[in-house]
Amino acid sequence: MTGKDVPMSDTRNDLPLGFSAGAAAAGFKKAGRDDLGLIVSDRPAVLAGLFTTNAFKAAPVQVCQQTLREYGTCRAVLANSGQANACTGDEGLENCLETRRMVAALTGLAPHEIMPMSTGVIGDQLKMDRWREAVPSLVESLGSRDAEGFTRAFMTTDAFPKFASITVPLSGGTVRLTGMAKGAGMICPNMATMLSVVLCDAQVEASVWQKMLRDAVELTFNRVTVDGDTSTNDTLYGLANGASGVSASDDESLKALSAALTSVLGDLAYMLVKDGEGASKVARIHVAGAASDADAERVARTVGHSQLVKTALYGRDANWGRIVAAVGRSGADFNPDDVVVTLCGVELFRKGQPTDLDFDALLEEPLKQRDLPIDIVLGSGSGSYTLLASDLGHEYVNVNADYRS
Amino acid sequence: MTGKDVPMSDTRNDLPLGFSAGAAAAGFKKAGRDDLGLIVSDRPAVLAGLFTTNAFKAAPVQVCQQTLREYGTCRAVLANSGQANACTGDEGLENCLETRRMVAALTGLAPHEIMPMSTGVIGDQLKMDRWREAVPSLVESLGSRDAEGFTRAFMTTDAFPKFASITVPLSGGTVRLTGMAKGAGMICPNMATMLSVVLCDAQVEASVWQKMLRDAVELTFNRVTVDGDTSTNDTLYGLANGASGVSASDDESLKALSAALTSVLGDLAYMLVKDGEGASKVARIHVAGAASDADAERVARTVGHSQLVKTALYGRDANWGRIVAAVGRSGADFNPDDVVVTLCGVELFRKGQPTDLDFDALLEEPLKQRDLPIDIVLGSGSGSYTLLASDLGHEYVNVNADYRS
Repeated sequence: MTGKDVPMSDTRNDLPLGFSAGAAAAGFKKAGRDDLGLIVSDRPAVLAGLFTTNAFKAAPVQVCQQTLREYGTCRAVLANSGQANACTGDEGLENCLETRRMVAALTGLAPHEIMPMSTGVIGDQLKMDRWREAVPSLVESLGSRDAEGFTRAFMTTDAFPKFASITVPLSGGTVRLTGMAKGAGMICPNMATMLSVVLCDAQVEASVWQKMLRDAVELTFNRVTVDGDTSTNDTLYGLANGASGVSASDDESLKALSAALTSVLGDLAYMLVKDGEGASKVARIHVAGAASDADAERVARTVGHSQLVKTALYGRDANWGRIVAAVGRSGADFNPDDVVVTLCGVELFRKGQPTDLDFDALLEEPLKQRDLPIDIVLGSGSGSYTLLASDLGHEYVNVNADYRS
Repeated sequence: MTGKDVPMSDTRNDLPLGFSAGAAAAGFKKAGRDDLGLIVSDRPAVLAGLFTTNAFKAAPVQVCQQTLREYGTCRAVLANSGQANACTGDEGLENCLETRRMVAALTGLAPHEIMPMSTGVIGDQLKMDRWREAVPSLVESLGSRDAEGFTRAFMTTDAFPKFASITVPLSGGTVRLTGMAKGAGMICPNMATMLSVVLCDAQVEASVWQKMLRDAVELTFNRVTVDGDTSTNDTLYGLANGASGVSASDDESLKALSAALTSVLGDLAYMLVKDGEGASKVARIHVAGAASDADAERVARTVGHSQLVKTALYGRDANWGRIVAAVGRSGADFNPDDVVVTLCGVELFRKGQPTDLDFDALLEEPLKQRDLPIDIVLGSGSGSYTLLASDLGHEYVNVNADYRS
């Protein structure tokens, strides 16, 4: 989603100043694979958080929302894969609090300074005995992992670790931002998404940081879909610890930091779709000319969630009819004769019927690419929306038909 | 969807009195396969019609809606597979009218007495030369096909022909109802569904027949989903020609006919889901205890459209967490602690967490069955809704990734 006027992120693996990371293999799911991660800031960091809108909120989400209401800062993020600790009742809440206490006891931090996040199978209780065994080596490992190493500790079905960093020149000096995320299923973020952490060493005011994060998410994570399913555990933390000594307070610096944040989260959002479970394509669905932005979003989401569109993209089939049928059932306000549909730059549909281009031939090569732009103009106004969506193929079924087994 | 207090349909293949059917192999898609069908009533039949709510309405849908407004009766139904004649502009409209004229010229009917319906690839124009060649043998074949024979002429990816008949005792004698339908993709009917014809030899008043059909559809076709995609061509015709000489006008007879119609359409709706493209399961999602029927529908549709739920059913995985997560993102009004989820009669989830039953073992056998009841109780009121949904597996991807090629 990175526009042309924002800085490009890099793939450097170091964390912003003042942050260190560790990980451990607790054996939650497979032996010998990191499944527990910890990030600690050497000073209190301003904390912003965005969480799932699902009515069934996982225990760590409930704990964090409570903590965020009471405290505006934190020192650490504690992440695990293997169990989502969602739909686990009072026992799940107590377990979540207990894992914070374990880490607090060995790090000297207060429990409320440690922000938990969990991913994995819904309904399983945390394996507390394995936590007890693993936490000492987790704390001991602090400083031994980089952005990639931490990200790997909370991957589930992800095919690759998702992280992006950026160096941002502000008026008072340079700061650094690093974002890390996991996908890859139950991805249709709403408010926040899956698990993600973004670290920053700028000094920034709490309310400004929270708003900046919310705005960036609205433009990035909230505009991707893999399967239309919003998870119970969606969590995004933003930690700004000020360790660079550089303050983001003047307008220009705030704009620069905001653009950088949007860039990093946009990169992560793209990676989520690229690595959507079994995905082979990333459709960039851009709707313009809608009566309102909400109408544009309605069209983009109907197209992006259509199983028939998704399987056609997987099959490299220029099946514009399925796109048009999805537009038609979206409920958006438009005149069918005004709609124009363009796939990979080739105009397929105008004035209620296909154009007379030989688009099967024209699109044969473009449809082999990973990135497929779908442009839909409704001709009813100036509303617009962009959504990234994955395709739907055999690998999706493979991954999801036997996830638990 | 057949309840216990309505008559059972049979698999007799004859049509109601006064109707005859024919078919021809026009070679629209594959040579030698019937792809053109005609039903003629020996007298004018009261006509009811329900059509897609998709904004892009196929040419035959537009023609029929117009005809239905001007005339309340018809004599024939003309169905083809191979081309949907949707998104085909003025040429498509003119072609549709021309096919009516071709049949009219050879049957002596007026063009407006012939109701067209088309299914197949969106955007292709009708192959008029093949129509011209095939219509004479189509008309000549009248009387040679039964319910199954006509149904086969407008199948596309259907694995089996879908038809059901019922004999209904009314106060003045016995009448007969026969319903025929095609699936199997772009199935999330709204108002009407796919292509379907229901024939009846009772005498019934036009407005009563139309309302009866609408009510029956609301309880049947509108409560199934295969892929969440509503097609551009959804059409359901109901023809009542009175050839039995038996009138449905007293309350008891109307109730009996209405129940029979709902039974036949319910059977067809079940078959649609059973034969959903690549489907191996039929989930009967029943939501009760909702704040309103609309809320219950919202929950049922969110669960029934969830790719993650659908792949879990395909994988015979008792993954209640995905069901619960879908309930949670549905937007319905409920307290998460009050929700109870039961799969195949085994209660999986209550009071915000899984029950302590060993449901993997309990469900191993039930999940091998085709029919999977999912019962969700929300605990917020008395609203309820039932939806039939298919699963999502490899065959779905196979069928849809290369439908056009």
